[in-house]
Amino acid sequence: MRPSKRAADAMRDVTLERAVARYAEGSCLVTFGNTRVLCTASLEERGPPWLRGSGKGWVTAEYAMLPRATHERTRREVNSGKPSGRTQEIQRLIGRSLRAVTNLPALGERQITVDCDVIQADGGTRTASITGAWVALHDCFAWMRARSIISVDPLKDHVAAVSCGIYKGQPVLDLDYAEDSAAETDANFVVTGKGGIVEVQGTAELEPFTDEQFLELLRLAKGGVAGLVELQRKAIA
Amino acid sequence: MRPSKRAADAMRDVTLERAVARYAEGSCLVTFGNTRVLCTASLEERGPPWLRGSGKGWVTAEYAMLPRATHERTRREVNSGKPSGRTQEIQRLIGRSLRAVTNLPALGERQITVDCDVIQADGGTRTASITGAWVALHDCFAWMRARSIISVDPLKDHVAAVSCGIYKGQPVLDLDYAEDSAAETDANFVVTGKGGIVEVQGTAELEPFTDEQFLELLRLAKGGVAGLVELQRKAIA
Amino acid sequence: MRPSKRAADAMRDVTLERAVARYAEGSCLVTFGNTRVLCTASLEERGPPWLRGSGKGWVTAEYAMLPRATHERTRREVNSGKPSGRTQEIQRLIGRSLRAVTNLPALGERQITVDCDVIQADGGTRTASITGAWVALHDCFAWMRARSIISVDPLKDHVAAVSCGIYKGQPVLDLDYAEDSAAETDANFVVTGKGGIVEVQGTAELEPFTDEQFLELLRLAKGGVAGLVELQRKAIA
Amino acid sequence: MRPSKRAADAMRDVTLERAVARYAEGSCLVTFGNTRVLCTASLEERGPPWLRGSGKGWVTAEYAMLPRATHERTRREVNSGKPSGRTQEIQRLIGRSLRAVTNLPALGERQITVDCDVIQADGGTRTASITGAWVALHDCFAWMRARSIISVDPLKDHVAAVSCGIYKGQPVLDLDYAEDSAAETDANFVVTGKGGIVEVQGTAELEPFTDEQFLELLRLAKGGVAGLVELQRKAIA
Amino acid sequence: MRPSKRAADAMRDVTLERAVARYAEGSCLVTFGNTRVLCTASLEERGPPWLRGSGKGWVTAEYAMLPRATHERTRREVNSGKPSGRTQEIQRLIGRSLRAVTNLPALGERQITVDCDVIQADGGTRTASITGAWVALHDCFAWMRARSIISVDPLKDHVAAVSCGIYKGQPVLDLDYAEDSAAETDANFVVTGKGGIVEVQGTAELEPFTDEQFLELLRLAKGGVAGLVELQRKAIA
Amino acid sequence: MRPSKRAADAMRDVTLERAVARYAEGSCLVTFGNTRVLCTASLEERGPPWLRGSGKGWVTAEYAMLPRATHERTRREVNSGKPSGRTQEIQRLIGRSLRAVTNLPALGERQITVDCDVIQADGGTRTASITGAWVALHDCFAWMRARSIISVDPLKDHVAAVSCGIYKGQPVLDLDYAEDSAAETDANFVVTGKGGIVEVQGTAELEPFTDEQFLELLRLAKGGVAGLVELQRKAIA
Repeated sequence: MRPSKRAADAMRDVTLERAVARYAEGSCLVTFGNTRVLCTASLEERGPPWLRGSGKGWVTAEYAMLPRATHERTRREVNSGKPSGRTQEIQRLIGRSLRAVTNLPALGERQITVDCDVIQADGGTRTASITGAWVALHDCFAWMRARSIISVDPLKDHVAAVSCGIYKGQPVLDLDYAEDSAAETDANFVVTGKGGIVEVQGTAELEPFTDEQFLELLRLAKGGVAGLVELQRKAIA
Repeated sequence: MRPSKRAADAMRDVTLERAVARYAEGSCLVTFGNTRVLCTASLEERGPPWLRGSGKGWVTAEYAMLPRATHERTRREVNSGKPSGRTQEIQRLIGRSLRAVTNLPALGERQITVDCDVIQADGGTRTASITGAWVALHDCFAWMRARSIISVDPLKDHVAAVSCGIYKGQPVLDLDYAEDSAAETDANFVVTGKGGIVEVQGTAELEPFTDEQFLELLRLAKGGVAGLVELQRKAIA
Repeated sequence: MRPSKRAADAMRDVTLERAVARYAEGSCLVTFGNTRVLCTASLEERGPPWLRGSGKGWVTAEYAMLPRATHERTRREVNSGKPSGRTQEIQRLIGRSLRAVTNLPALGERQITVDCDVIQADGGTRTASITGAWVALHDCFAWMRARSIISVDPLKDHVAAVSCGIYKGQPVLDLDYAEDSAAETDANFVVTGKGGIVEVQGTAELEPFTDEQFLELLRLAKGGVAGLVELQRKAIA
Repeated sequence: MRPSKRAADAMRDVTLERAVARYAEGSCLVTFGNTRVLCTASLEERGPPWLRGSGKGWVTAEYAMLPRATHERTRREVNSGKPSGRTQEIQRLIGRSLRAVTNLPALGERQITVDCDVIQADGGTRTASITGAWVALHDCFAWMRARSIISVDPLKDHVAAVSCGIYKGQPVLDLDYAEDSAAETDANFVVTGKGGIVEVQGTAELEPFTDEQFLELLRLAKGGVAGLVELQRKAIA
Repeated sequence: MRPSKRAADAMRDVTLERAVARYAEGSCLVTFGNTRVLCTASLEERGPPWLRGSGKGWVTAEYAMLPRATHERTRREVNSGKPSGRTQEIQRLIGRSLRAVTNLPALGERQITVDCDVIQADGGTRTASITGAWVALHDCFAWMRARSIISVDPLKDHVAAVSCGIYKGQPVLDLDYAEDSAAETDANFVVTGKGGIVEVQGTAELEPFTDEQFLELLRLAKGGVAGLVELQRKAIA
Repeated sequence: MRPSKRAADAMRDVTLERAVARYAEGSCLVTFGNTRVLCTASLEERGPPWLRGSGKGWVTAEYAMLPRATHERTRREVNSGKPSGRTQEIQRLIGRSLRAVTNLPALGERQITVDCDVIQADGGTRTASITGAWVALHDCFAWMRARSIISVDPLKDHVAAVSCGIYKGQPVLDLDYAEDSAAETDANFVVTGKGGIVEVQGTAELEPFTDEQFLELLRLAKGGVAGLVELQRKAIA
């Protein structure tokens, strides 16, 4: 029995609220149960230096947690002088996931930065971030098209993400904090609207896992992402 | 005529929403018009090293802005390795303001950190932070009393803050961003519920100001703070 | 009775010694009693990047204390990797004060950096710095005019500063360290030669202060600054 | 056809040379073709602070590349003030992989740090590091047992790692730099001697990949690791 | 002919002024011509951690230049986040030189920090620093003996330093800035009152030098230091 | 008797192995007994900014130690955010030594960076580095001439280095770690193939040394370097 009483293949309640930031070109407040992440997409007219003259744009992401997003207060990373390894790992993952579904030449030599700031953290902050960031990015592109900055939508597909894990021996979908901190295995899957895999990260926390267990996690994840993509579709309708 | 059509002595709409952060001992989402700040109060059982053995506690504050709180995206301070001078100035001001109304021995050798994270910035973020931080601190103390961690309420009085300025030659209350960026003089006042002044900061941005102008700003500010304290009273009722 | 036996409205002995640094374009060693600050003005032919093409110049300031300026040795800030919040607050204040009396377009696209290095600290280092920095800046402009780098004196007025405070219940002028560390309220005033206020900073250290107390501090400060401006006039005569 | 003419399921030549560092408790120079990594295991009698009193030890890893390990010289990370996100990601991966096969209570409250310094880089530096680090760790534990510091071997199993990828549409084993920089998909697998999966990381560089492709990569990886474990067995025999 | 018209073996005018810092336990303003360095010695009752329990004390030094000590303004090192390599090299040299003539057990488990702050720089700042630092250290020990903190003078001998160089082919004593920036070879010598060598640093800036040239520099230096030690004797008399 | 049984004027076994790094333009693995340093020379087509337009090139060096090069593991400098003072001192010394024998205009506006990474440290790492770096630099220049990037060999002479010291009262050549940590005096000499002195650094660790002792160290060093230059000649033959 999961702490939240959910079935093994049940996601938490997920909401995607658009246009929550007055000044951003696109924004989305995403919730996965008690996890809440504010995603904003910011257009910068200048791309990164290494793409100068290439005709291609760039999509990047930054990730942070408010100090009291967590059960115990977490020290601000600015006070240790640099983003932690975990933060860098997550923001690189979000950026790669968004670029996997973006037509970078269609964006022109511009950069979109998607900021994912975790307001409240109850597990799954990176997967919620990717799922919400896609909506913010979509709306940023819509904003640009409405102003004729670009003529073609650079988005090639949806992308969303979910975590799975083995909790008390059973593969389960969408770990919350209580499950995540006790899971034997923890895995994150980033998948497109068409079902292509963009990123897989699986880690055995206690015992190595078998091929069969991993396949079951993959199966759960693909079901979960299908539901998330459906919610994204409704949100932008 | 002010850009917002407000009268010279009119504040923006102010709201104080409590208990917005699931895990914090006290929290408040404060809005001054389009300015929105999330304030959380976190109890730490260990006070700062320099108070060890003194029997006294400490209240401190940290302040930050989300990157896209502003009209243009602002670079995260973690990426430059340290809080900016402006950030440090503001968080020291919030901390001093809260300590001015706190009975530190009644708190015992503990520390409360109030985090003020600006979700959206339209002028007056430091004064909104102080006003909302007081509510979060109040609720943190209530939480501690409910659990018999302390027996006496360490709060001696309310404290709230407001900015005033001289805009197109006229003293006005509660500058928004449009006024703030064009004001000749900008001043912040931190005042207690009983009307005592805790902090005054006035800066001539263009031309030096006269004693008379400064007194008029002080008069406006005290009216504004009286209204804010009334809102705090209603919020905690 | 003040520890120094001074009357409530009496400044310490103040001296302003010019041309104390062989290589600087302007320099002044200022003393307020035992507080001694070396101020040097350095001309740089290139203004800051954000003024490029504007035809305007910039005046900025940096502030530091020698490690043994103080009663106990203070750790060098270079060893903690960055200027402290206090240092940044002070150097921004000095810069703003000097710019308030400088005609920036008359300076052309150049930058003057005024360094204020505290050789000995007995209270009032920031107000002494502003008072001495004005002399160094004046001499730098004279040096530039003598070489026809500029044709008009960019200085519009004098500027000087003094601290006041409430010590044992009584408003007093020009706090030394013994008073400063025990004062209930501490305020700094930056005022021009014509009596216009450039900056006001008042902080209640123990108890909030009243409007009347604050007005008395302002009155004391304006008397003190008038005397400082008179000394500046004599120094540059 | 692979640039190296290898068959799709062929590893590069792999060597594991022990006792290459005179002062380390355990060491191994591992080569995967032209990739060369020096792994040293250092015993520290004090464990990390968060395990004090737990009776458990810790195994951690650090990773770095010599500046001219690479085709073009790479700037030293010490000169940018911190390990890059990539470095942190890799050293956390190595540490997790080693801990997955270590009985931490059997180690006692001690810490082993395994340093993986890349002497030459031709792709697969993280997987070579894990494979060689296991040998260095094994020898460190043997050193400790020979001195009766511990009585039981804390190693529960072998662990080794290999990368796979989709190169020109074909799944291949053990990417070298020429393949890695052109691969559509890149995945790293960390597997134990018994065939349990410790870590899976797969990233689509160009196009999302299918479940089938991923399973084929997993199959290749398990074959590759089986060979690496066999080489580890011979090396320590 | 030297730019300063001095004979090859002539030092600049040297002065040693004691008790120039009101709060320091010992202090000396040393001038070598236009080079001026303020040296203060600060007693700390706690020695460095690595000497805890050894019964021995420590003498260390820190060195810095005011930004406008130099012909052109130099950027403060605090703004680049760390002391430069040159600064660290110099402060380690000063510390070693002082420790060479200090009986560390006689000091007890205490630390003396000698700060050498260059007020004006015209060549030879490190040698002037060592020469003045010895006087500050002497006075700090006298201060401690006067208060019976120590019973024996920990100073075993004088120590002083001077630079020599080959300027236009001729070995000369005590380089000023004009000579230093054009010298073919630059050497610093730290020598005790009894004539023992504590430190020798010679660098060929343009052409390698011969044994004979080096011996001539050493001869000049020993003459120069003898004069400096004589001035130290008079200063403390 | 020396711990290594060597005669006072005997060097350790020295080897110079070329072409040890597959990608570098020049490389050399140098050993002085158990001290092993990997030196690589990297050509960069762009010189440093301060030489732009001068027609001259630059040779610089960087130095680091692997964490377990030493008897006890040493913390990586990247984790403290900056190269230590010792590291900076050594890499500046290596760079100066190489430039002393390089014709910088013949190099053109290019930069060579020689990286010296200590694989194993048993004393004399800086002198071994200089000796091996010369070989790597030589081979880098040969590589450039073979590709007609330069037409003239920029090397003017050999350069090599050795340490000497006073161990148990006796001057000895080429200190290993056991001697170095117990020596009364430690000196490093950098000398050219023609016998010109490029750098001398002598430090009294315990007692000041006499002129005579220093001359004896110089004599030993010149003999040692003559042997090293002979080995360089054979290595490049």
